Amino acid sequence: MSGLVDLQRDGALAFVTLAQPAKFNAMSRAMWRQLRELFLALHAQPGLRVIVLQGQGGHFCAGGDIAEYTDFRFEPEGLRAFHEGDVWGGLSAVLDCDVPVIAAIEGHCMGAGLEIASCCDLRLAATSARFGAPIAKLGFPMAPREAALVARAVGELTAREMLLAARVLDAPTLLARGFLNEVCTDHELAATCLALAQRMAQLAPEAARMNKRMLRQLQQQGPVALPQLVEGAYDYADSAEHREGVAAFMAKRPAVFL
Amino acid sequence: MSGLVDLQRDGALAFVTLAQPAKFNAMSRAMWRQLRELFLALHAQPGLRVIVLQGQGGHFCAGGDIAEYTDFRFEPEGLRAFHEGDVWGGLSAVLDCDVPVIAAIEGHCMGAGLEIASCCDLRLAATSARFGAPIAKLGFPMAPREAALVARAVGELTAREMLLAARVLDAPTLLARGFLNEVCTDHELAATCLALAQRMAQLAPEAARMNKRMLRQLQQQGPVALPQLVEGAYDYADSAEHREGVAAFMAKRPAVFL
Amino acid sequence: MSGLVDLQRDGALAFVTLAQPAKFNAMSRAMWRQLRELFLALHAQPGLRVIVLQGQGGHFCAGGDIAEYTDFRFEPEGLRAFHEGDVWGGLSAVLDCDVPVIAAIEGHCMGAGLEIASCCDLRLAATSARFGAPIAKLGFPMAPREAALVARAVGELTAREMLLAARVLDAPTLLARGFLNEVCTDHELAATCLALAQRMAQLAPEAARMNKRMLRQLQQQGPVALPQLVEGAYDYADSAEHREGVAAFMAKRPAVFL
Repeated sequence: MSGLVDLQRDGALAFVTLAQPAKFNAMSRAMWRQLRELFLALHAQPGLRVIVLQGQGGHFCAGGDIAEYTDFRFEPEGLRAFHEGDVWGGLSAVLDCDVPVIAAIEGHCMGAGLEIASCCDLRLAATSARFGAPIAKLGFPMAPREAALVARAVGELTAREMLLAARVLDAPTLLARGFLNEVCTDHELAATCLALAQRMAQLAPEAARMNKRMLRQLQQQGPVALPQLVEGAYDYADSAEHREGVAAFMAKRPAVFL
Repeated sequence: MSGLVDLQRDGALAFVTLAQPAKFNAMSRAMWRQLRELFLALHAQPGLRVIVLQGQGGHFCAGGDIAEYTDFRFEPEGLRAFHEGDVWGGLSAVLDCDVPVIAAIEGHCMGAGLEIASCCDLRLAATSARFGAPIAKLGFPMAPREAALVARAVGELTAREMLLAARVLDAPTLLARGFLNEVCTDHELAATCLALAQRMAQLAPEAARMNKRMLRQLQQQGPVALPQLVEGAYDYADSAEHREGVAAFMAKRPAVFL
Repeated sequence: MSGLVDLQRDGALAFVTLAQPAKFNAMSRAMWRQLRELFLALHAQPGLRVIVLQGQGGHFCAGGDIAEYTDFRFEPEGLRAFHEGDVWGGLSAVLDCDVPVIAAIEGHCMGAGLEIASCCDLRLAATSARFGAPIAKLGFPMAPREAALVARAVGELTAREMLLAARVLDAPTLLARGFLNEVCTDHELAATCLALAQRMAQLAPEAARMNKRMLRQLQQQGPVALPQLVEGAYDYADSAEHREGVAAFMAKRPAVFL
């Protein structure tokens, strides 16, 4: 068995953990498929408000599980099935999840790890974190959907630095480049992410899902999606959540979203 | 009367002031409509070179005027008319203005305030400024056109932080995230903006209008707009402004654009 | 003779130098055409791995060669031929080059210089570098294709600051705005760029070319290009470069890409 993706549900929160610690949580094909199954299930779980995505044992994810590569990478159909099926299957399930996802990043965040982090809504990192995609040392380019995802999240310049120069960048640099919301010590990371997740879990859950769906369509289609997005955008008018939020503000009390 | 949008014209400059100071300049429906009327008029005023957009009494704008919300928000047609008519009417008039607009931001810059600032060409802030869109506490998502505008201006990551975590960010953070051109003390803000506006008023006015029209079409349509933009792009060749600029450079004197 | 573009080939590296030092390497029409010819040729040179693009005599490039402007700028057809033919001919040849290009920037990086730097994959600057496009002082707007290129590279806010306020920004600011990978002293710039180019020359050359083609199509067409990009994206499966990279990793030795 080459690694697994673990799930812990705790009230309104879920913790998803990439776990192949002997390889710094490198993603095996089995793990990509588990990541997909898990996120498809989480997307539909009632009462779930926030997901924290993390790695086991001091690292987020060091990349793909290269020990498996000789089995399938040297034949175009097998290579395509891996990237378009397993990898994109996993990444797209995270992207398509309507529940907010926080990436908690320490240690290696490379290749597949960078791609998984790029699918998350918020990214917090510890000072130990290192970011890159040095696959130019492994003799291959980034797959198109993965490159589009990463270039959008880290920016065009950083994507080229990672892909064409195999450069590995630290957390302060990725904060300055706009990829991270916050950097803290390794010691503080878990508590900082937990506190953030708990605060987010108090906010309006249906509004979060609507915001995520809308931002996703804008990312995928650009401004041409707007006329279609406007249709149906105001159906929430009479919802209990909307009425509670406005009523609480008028009454100068915190809103309670059930 | 719930607030107003004030206009002062001073030579080549205009100062537009959001004014409902008892509510930190929260935007009422009447103010959105005034904002639109004002910018449609400014767009056509001869001799106008630069607009400074600011708030009254130490704040830019704290958001929408929530006291009005119970009148119309809980019915889809009324809600749609508010966002697509009043709010987008005001914002699009600022976006469509060919005269350069500087946002002078101090204190609250939240929700509607963040959206108005996102329509400006340059953004200067005082250290007191605070930025966010914590509507997840009010139980509703951002309207699609407004979210597309804000995500483009503050970046995808910051938009998600503001919408999904209701996070409020300070001026140095928004400077680092690329939303602000400059941060200065509250004491210096007015003078810094005035000096910038006066310098900008010396530059070629028709070139500014052409640059704004071009950048707007690129934002709205992306690179597919280029073939159409190239048509007509060089009609300015024989203009007095173009001849004066080049002649002044050759004569090593400052250009004077009438 | 008004300037030239010089080429030095040194093993896997090529050094392209903008050279009209009496005018801080301002680009004449002849230099735009040479830039195009040179990059079309470099794109096809066997064994070439990395290109360093620099200026002569302590500056990158101060802009266009304004002394030539009175010959052709005041008539629409001549102006269009200059921008769409000469300038875009040069810039598009750099953009279309599949070999990675590093910009080594010191001193003036203005107008045409900013545009040329915007075509490069990585950008390193010395602390002396100054960036801008103050053509509003010269009475004309940026041409559409050039503005789209620059706005994408420096970001929308900085493009407006440069075009509408004629603002000149220093290297630390452009680093913070995400336009530069790195800033070092003037004394260190050449050695830093050389060391980077040598490291990049050890990486998989065909992977670099595939990455550049893919990122270029994503820039030009956006995510709609993805289905087409996926076709053919995995044809490299059986290549010697791919096999060497993975084999070297498994053998825990550095890959050697011939």
